[in-house]
Amino acid sequence: MVPPELDEGLPLERIGDFSLEELLGMAIKAEIGARKFYESLAERIEVEALKEKIEWLAGEEGKHEALLRKMYGAMFPGKEVVFPKEHIGPELKPVARELHGVQDIIDLMKWAMKAEEIAAQFYEGIEKIVESEERKRLMRYLSDMERGHYYTLRAEYELLLDWEMYSQMMHVGP
Amino acid sequence: MVPPELDEGLPLERIGDFSLEELLGMAIKAEIGARKFYESLAERIEVEALKEKIEWLAGEEGKHEALLRKMYGAMFPGKEVVFPKEHIGPELKPVARELHGVQDIIDLMKWAMKAEEIAAQFYEGIEKIVESEERKRLMRYLSDMERGHYYTLRAEYELLLDWEMYSQMMHVGP
Repeated sequence: MVPPELDEGLPLERIGDFSLEELLGMAIKAEIGARKFYESLAERIEVEALKEKIEWLAGEEGKHEALLRKMYGAMFPGKEVVFPKEHIGPELKPVARELHGVQDIIDLMKWAMKAEEIAAQFYEGIEKIVESEERKRLMRYLSDMERGHYYTLRAEYELLLDWEMYSQMMHVGP
Repeated sequence: MVPPELDEGLPLERIGDFSLEELLGMAIKAEIGARKFYESLAERIEVEALKEKIEWLAGEEGKHEALLRKMYGAMFPGKEVVFPKEHIGPELKPVARELHGVQDIIDLMKWAMKAEEIAAQFYEGIEKIVESEERKRLMRYLSDMERGHYYTLRAEYELLLDWEMYSQMMHVGP
């Protein structure tokens, strides 16, 4: 079941149906959604080690939004960002409900992994569309970063499945 | 050319030549080396965005060391950690020299990527050796984390290759 925090969106193949301006708008919207998702998730997590990691992800998505807005500004000077109604791939939304126990967190992490994985592919898709080497490079940067997030989440997810060990191992060191 | 901060070590296939105790000792030593490498690299970097990311990596490796020590303590209670002279895969060492320009940073990032990639494979190798599901899970955790580092580094590395854009794009936000 898809939780309310995740909208599955259009398949990746639909990238070709949108202009670059629309795709950048979607990407900015997705980064904002991901940041708010992680912020609201972190607020609901009590295990300090995991909370910090999720807050870190929120901060990273905020930086990506800033980078994308800068790129948008350079490509469409003076224009307001247009946010299309549609979006490619899963879009994360703020967690508004109360979470009950670790299973709720595990489920949300699983969906966040899916969103990060497809975000990485989405940026790879935009890389093929932009023409200058500079912009391609920026898309590879974002794609690699999201892939890094995917593995960070996968690591935590995997350990969370054994909650007893997680809580035991994560109370380590200062 | 291999820089002084990196010792290439033994090939992965040699994992089978060592006991689990020795492998954990190697892993702890490698995490310490990586942390010191990132700490000393961060001290030599002036671009705030990159410095922060490298400092974050240093902190992560410190947490991995603590986790591994805890696992070691559980498996070999009361025993001092034995650090074998050999190590599997590249081992990072502190950066002791002065860096000259972005090319030096790029070179070190490239070696760090290699070290992270092989660290991920090294933990996968140990996963096959440990018997309990709990310990396998912990090895998958570390493997995924190092893979996450690899992609984080690859993203920065790729963007650093275009220094003009890097310095321009990274001066974003507050």
